Amino acid sequence: MAEQLEKEIVLQQEAVTKQGDVVRSLKASLKDGKIERSEVDAAIAQLNGLKVSLDAKQKEYEKVSGKVSSQSKEAFRAAMAGTLERRMFYLPSFKIYGSVAGFYDYGPPGCAIKQNITQTWRQHFVLEENMLEVECPAVTPEVVLKASGHVDRFTDFMVTDVKTGECYRADHLLEHHLEALLDDKKTPLSADKVKEVRDLLASVGELKQEAMGTALTEYGVKAPGSGNDISAPFPFNLMFKTSIGPKGDMVGYLRPETAQGIFVNFRDLLYYNGSKLPFAAAQIGNSYRNEISPRAGLLRVREFTQAEIEHFVSEDKSHPKFASVADLAPLLYSRELQMGEAKKAQPMTLGEAVRRGIIANETLAYFIGRTWLFFQRVGIDPARMRFRQHLQHEMAHYAADCWDGEVETSYGWVECVGLADRSAYDLQAHTAMSKVDLVAYEKFPEPRVMDVVKVAPNNKELGVAFRKDQKIVKELLENLTEESALALKAKLESEAASATLSTCD
Amino acid sequence: MAEQLEKEIVLQQEAVTKQGDVVRSLKASLKDGKIERSEVDAAIAQLNGLKVSLDAKQKEYEKVSGKVSSQSKEAFRAAMAGTLERRMFYLPSFKIYGSVAGFYDYGPPGCAIKQNITQTWRQHFVLEENMLEVECPAVTPEVVLKASGHVDRFTDFMVTDVKTGECYRADHLLEHHLEALLDDKKTPLSADKVKEVRDLLASVGELKQEAMGTALTEYGVKAPGSGNDISAPFPFNLMFKTSIGPKGDMVGYLRPETAQGIFVNFRDLLYYNGSKLPFAAAQIGNSYRNEISPRAGLLRVREFTQAEIEHFVSEDKSHPKFASVADLAPLLYSRELQMGEAKKAQPMTLGEAVRRGIIANETLAYFIGRTWLFFQRVGIDPARMRFRQHLQHEMAHYAADCWDGEVETSYGWVECVGLADRSAYDLQAHTAMSKVDLVAYEKFPEPRVMDVVKVAPNNKELGVAFRKDQKIVKELLENLTEESALALKAKLESEAASATLSTCD
Repeated sequence: MAEQLEKEIVLQQEAVTKQGDVVRSLKASLKDGKIERSEVDAAIAQLNGLKVSLDAKQKEYEKVSGKVSSQSKEAFRAAMAGTLERRMFYLPSFKIYGSVAGFYDYGPPGCAIKQNITQTWRQHFVLEENMLEVECPAVTPEVVLKASGHVDRFTDFMVTDVKTGECYRADHLLEHHLEALLDDKKTPLSADKVKEVRDLLASVGELKQEAMGTALTEYGVKAPGSGNDISAPFPFNLMFKTSIGPKGDMVGYLRPETAQGIFVNFRDLLYYNGSKLPFAAAQIGNSYRNEISPRAGLLRVREFTQAEIEHFVSEDKSHPKFASVADLAPLLYSRELQMGEAKKAQPMTLGEAVRRGIIANETLAYFIGRTWLFFQRVGIDPARMRFRQHLQHEMAHYAADCWDGEVETSYGWVECVGLADRSAYDLQAHTAMSKVDLVAYEKFPEPRVMDVVKVAPNNKELGVAFRKDQKIVKELLENLTEESALALKAKLESEAASATLSTCD
Repeated sequence: MAEQLEKEIVLQQEAVTKQGDVVRSLKASLKDGKIERSEVDAAIAQLNGLKVSLDAKQKEYEKVSGKVSSQSKEAFRAAMAGTLERRMFYLPSFKIYGSVAGFYDYGPPGCAIKQNITQTWRQHFVLEENMLEVECPAVTPEVVLKASGHVDRFTDFMVTDVKTGECYRADHLLEHHLEALLDDKKTPLSADKVKEVRDLLASVGELKQEAMGTALTEYGVKAPGSGNDISAPFPFNLMFKTSIGPKGDMVGYLRPETAQGIFVNFRDLLYYNGSKLPFAAAQIGNSYRNEISPRAGLLRVREFTQAEIEHFVSEDKSHPKFASVADLAPLLYSRELQMGEAKKAQPMTLGEAVRRGIIANETLAYFIGRTWLFFQRVGIDPARMRFRQHLQHEMAHYAADCWDGEVETSYGWVECVGLADRSAYDLQAHTAMSKVDLVAYEKFPEPRVMDVVKVAPNNKELGVAFRKDQKIVKELLENLTEESALALKAKLESEAASATLSTCD
């Protein structure tokens, strides 16, 4: 019954869209004086009839099934997207040339909304917190993105249809295949198999190249549509590549994120801030990702506006304004809740979350609170937003704690904001590549006395003992970590004999 | 005397800059507690002494020469740029990696100024005139820029140093060479030669490839610095090229201007505007030009923000709000004044300029007036802005009239705004390429009766007379212009005999 209704709803939806187009073209003809007013009125009456009937069908469906089906969700979304396009909120770019997937234009009302959101963001974060705003170019020389890791690691696994050459994202194909297996009512899986498929589904995003290939082969995943075999998965870099200057010898990329522009300016920004930490820098600008197969409307596009903040802080991660957000209670979806049975976010005050060690520190929690307030300021229902903590294996090795600000949409929960304590990873990476020290000095109120272990080789004795190897031994000694040096000292003293230094130490 | 002073000024300027750096680094050391306050004070005293002495030298120079020399202009500019960079108004991008020519970052005060200018522009033009704002991607598929002519014609002539491979803009090399010839006091040119060089200098921008090559050879232009021979000039396309999608088979470019995004959306924008003309659409966004050898600070960069308006108008180019600007009297540098003896812009009311046919129509003059008001609103001295009309040979063949809004800077008069009546060229180009009619219909208040010449071939008689050539003749007849058809008719009637149709007609 419900299934039959769903199909009817989709058909009716299409009929409404079609009749809407008829009415619009008739109106245009009327304007040019080619037809009579009565023809238009008749078409409008027919359109209204179709709408009433569609509405009734939808109400009936909701009564029978007690829910909004994914099909009627999709029908609603299609109708909504159609309206937004006709009213020029946004529309596919280059329409008269057949458009290109992943590119959208904003029309007049879309521009106005985007302007309002951008200005609200600037007001809420940059101006209210005295952040340092920067604006850097999108075209970026390779060395910057080599240092940041994007040249080597900003990839998705791609597979191709071996016959047509069509390209697909490996993780999307695998996900769809596994979801279809779980949904298949005709040939239900065994309980064991269900568990296996569910576990794999949960980890698709983290599969390495080989594991992805094994999974695709094991489950016999084929190319959608054609049903042809697919290639083994291989990494595809998502950055748009170009060449800077007339000689053609300088590789450049369109930046995949705006944050790197802040990191490479760290030294000047720190000086601008009176050489004091903490400070935050912000950038609003366009980023570019050459997605393999963009879909989901504005959610996954190839050119989009990002607004990013990097807050630079010393070891002390308390925040002077934390009290102002400590009593806010957003929905938190902690690691614990995700691993537990309920699998549901719970409201919790940020003060409690920090006290209980759920959020790593005050600074991170402060920005979660500020983001929550921003979401509400731009009109998002608090019941449809949550902060989801990254599971341990989702985080990069250098990250201390990560939370995604997610909003519930017709596509499910969608990450809209990422908040991460990335330690000093990015500054260290650019320091290593550029040989420019991106560091800040802090003056303590009182001088602190610290014991430091310093290896001071006795050149004369080393020369006597090691002769031509003296230099190597000296270098090894000088490069010992504090811990190793102390261990070596203890060993030498206790055994009063010899010890071995390895070049891998 | 003046020359000697100029040299001294440059040296003093350098000394001031250097001492400024010393003071800054001492201040940093003081903060870290490494030095005494007195050391900093001594360095500051020395800096102030240098500044006083520089100031005296500059005053002396101005007294002796009665002018601000280009060298002292350059010294001033260098000092100004240094200050702006230190205060983070703008600075070379990717500094820690040695930067890349033609790319600049805006720091906090630069971002604030840019924001203010952009918002003032939006307020002054878009909101005050109810324009339709759009925002389109920078990444653009080839077909769009093929239609607009950029793929084939958006080029500069480039020459390379035959030994080092270094690249130069041919027009810049020729200009510098000719200017040096005119300035050379030791071997002055004959009066005839001076005229020849001056004429060539005035037309460098319009030289075709062959003429450019001839001129470079004739004047023996060499590569700057190395003095090596240079290659013949060849066209270099200024667009950044990239590839869209995973297959690598779709060529894309970064847009060199924002206007094309408006043209390809014309049909939807017209519909949005109730299918009525006139209307204007605007876009603020980044454009990209892979300049051969960028220089002159922010004036010629590879990535920059553009704000463009396309005002679509029917044959009637009067403007309902023209009265509001008719009494404004900006400096106009008309074709006539440029060709005359004085070579100086004159103030003239826009009302008079339109009446006398100096500006082609009210709509163009209206936007010149609005631009003049905008210039003042953002703080430009009215005595340092003028509108320069394009000479006939500067304009594209389809353009009816063009005026550049120019501002006088230390680089001379610089084009900041271009205002052109481009007829329907762009819409026609995209109609031809996309096969989508980008046209608007206008309903006259009263029906108009028009005589139209229509060739109606008599198939039977054509068949008898031309047999197998009948189809060709019929096509030729049907494709005759109105004028040719009437001429043919007259000829046939008067001679009562035969006439020849050519396939080139």
